[in-house]
Amino acid sequence: MIEETIDRIEPLDEKAMKFAKERQDFLTKPKDSLGILEKLSIQVTGITRNPMPKIRDKVIITMAGDHGVVEEDVSAFPKEVTLQMVDNFIHGGAAINVLARHIGARVIIVDIGVAIDIKPHKNVINKKVGYGTKNIARGAAMSYDEAIRSVEAGIEVLEEEIKKGVDIVGIGDMGIGNTTASSAIVAAVTGERVERVTGRGTGINDAMYDNKIRVIKKALEVNSPDGKDPLDVLAKVGGFEIGGLAGVVLGAAAHGIPVVMDGFVSAAGGLLATELAPLAKKYIIASHNSVEIGHNILLKRMGLRPLLDLNMRLGEGTGAALGIGIVEASVKILTEMATFEDAGVSKAISDEV
Amino acid sequence: MIEETIDRIEPLDEKAMKFAKERQDFLTKPKDSLGILEKLSIQVTGITRNPMPKIRDKVIITMAGDHGVVEEDVSAFPKEVTLQMVDNFIHGGAAINVLARHIGARVIIVDIGVAIDIKPHKNVINKKVGYGTKNIARGAAMSYDEAIRSVEAGIEVLEEEIKKGVDIVGIGDMGIGNTTASSAIVAAVTGERVERVTGRGTGINDAMYDNKIRVIKKALEVNSPDGKDPLDVLAKVGGFEIGGLAGVVLGAAAHGIPVVMDGFVSAAGGLLATELAPLAKKYIIASHNSVEIGHNILLKRMGLRPLLDLNMRLGEGTGAALGIGIVEASVKILTEMATFEDAGVSKAISDEV
Repeated sequence: MIEETIDRIEPLDEKAMKFAKERQDFLTKPKDSLGILEKLSIQVTGITRNPMPKIRDKVIITMAGDHGVVEEDVSAFPKEVTLQMVDNFIHGGAAINVLARHIGARVIIVDIGVAIDIKPHKNVINKKVGYGTKNIARGAAMSYDEAIRSVEAGIEVLEEEIKKGVDIVGIGDMGIGNTTASSAIVAAVTGERVERVTGRGTGINDAMYDNKIRVIKKALEVNSPDGKDPLDVLAKVGGFEIGGLAGVVLGAAAHGIPVVMDGFVSAAGGLLATELAPLAKKYIIASHNSVEIGHNILLKRMGLRPLLDLNMRLGEGTGAALGIGIVEASVKILTEMATFEDAGVSKAISDEV
Repeated sequence: MIEETIDRIEPLDEKAMKFAKERQDFLTKPKDSLGILEKLSIQVTGITRNPMPKIRDKVIITMAGDHGVVEEDVSAFPKEVTLQMVDNFIHGGAAINVLARHIGARVIIVDIGVAIDIKPHKNVINKKVGYGTKNIARGAAMSYDEAIRSVEAGIEVLEEEIKKGVDIVGIGDMGIGNTTASSAIVAAVTGERVERVTGRGTGINDAMYDNKIRVIKKALEVNSPDGKDPLDVLAKVGGFEIGGLAGVVLGAAAHGIPVVMDGFVSAAGGLLATELAPLAKKYIIASHNSVEIGHNILLKRMGLRPLLDLNMRLGEGTGAALGIGIVEASVKILTEMATFEDAGVSKAISDEV
């Protein structure tokens, strides 16, 4: 299923992008004066293969999973918080609920690996691959099969949502301990030093931070993930929600849907997806630059420039929600503005502009 | 009237901000994890003197005026474009209309100094102080009285809108030639070298750029504006719309309304306002960092950090519209998220977080 999805990913539609670029230059504004908004709108036409795209159905997929490595004291919050926050998501009280309502998006909560069963609820999708990962400081997070299943689960969730309508998708994460797994993934794939790609997650003190780095180094030693095999990396030091988010990215790319990445954990999922399918990169829009130090390094490596830099580090898809608002604005500029001809406005005097 | 308005401006409400800061720390997220969004929401409570503010009525005030200095070939577009763009605004086809609709704001177009009469239309407010400024390379842009009138007109427009409801106001500009006036204002007030505060406006080539710098230097020489007297600077080298925007800023500060600044021209208005009333600074939110090189220098001097950096340089209030979307999101975070107690979520284990 992963192979099939990857095979469906095509380069962006050059024809749609050429149309959009030309149209941008005819709109009633100085050429290029909306900067990144113009580029974004052009990218969206290439992704959707539609020169005049509409963004109506906005979806944020937030994947939740637990991490066995929490027993190594790598997080400021207890493990129970993953489940408690899923409950908070279900009842609409979390930051992602607020920001999704703000931009008119629906939030899809996916239990892909929470440590205990969640009572069935219309607002949460059960795609449980396991009851939390194992402690990566002592062995593999999950089996290779479970790694495959978690990516497949992500593809499935996206494809089920497509039936209801998805014009743009944001990805988000919830999982106490998941910045530890993400740093391990990034170090394994990129070869960067652990210190360079490890931050303070939900907010830990210096002693816990030093411990977190030791734990990640130990996880890499104990597991020796093969940086050339993204699924091996996911299995050895990853997380169910990170695999799931990689699946959403692959599915979005395969179906021509723009995918707006959130912060560091989402980017770790995005990294796995683009290592599996480099063409998927063009379908990703980086919403913001997280406070997590590894995020910026990762974005640079992926060749992505984040839209926002608001000192955020929450996850859940919160940055993605704000990013979707900007992407939607960019598409409206392309499709709703008057041209010079429509509006009877004189063009620039000189050719240089 | 200007004096009276300035006298009404008070420091931000510390009590409301203290409440908001405390509430932010009880919301279901790691402390400070929403970064700038948290700070913004706290600022808005201080501005509005309301610990739980609502942003419902969003207004963008776009002031239009012409500039006699256009006869010195400082712009890529002909003078007629100011009027043509006002017509475009009226009919909803400009970028500011699109972005205002996107965020659910109403756009108020003000003719404060367009060179010819505009046919009365429900979408445009007539506050004409003059038929375009005079050529600043040859003498004063306007009389001192007209400078006062333009600031007063801005205050009046805002106060008229308050009757209909204004929870937040964005400011924007339209005026071919107005980056030339803005650079002259900034150089006069800050003492910065003209080269450091002059950009390419709507997009001019190297030769026109060199000419623009020469023209601004000449305007400063010919007029010798008194950098300590903002109204003298406005009269000598300013523009009607720039004075009007300064008035909107003063009015917003006096009435406890957050004012979201757009790009370079709006910031020139903001600078005049805060030189007249330093307390007004706390009421301003800088939406974005314009491509115009003088903008960044100005924001630093005003102690403002822009929310966005999207390579935009259009004006009209386009950056302000996007900024308002972010401010609204920040306030919803403060007022709509569940607390740890509400949601039954465990707080952090360690005190450090």
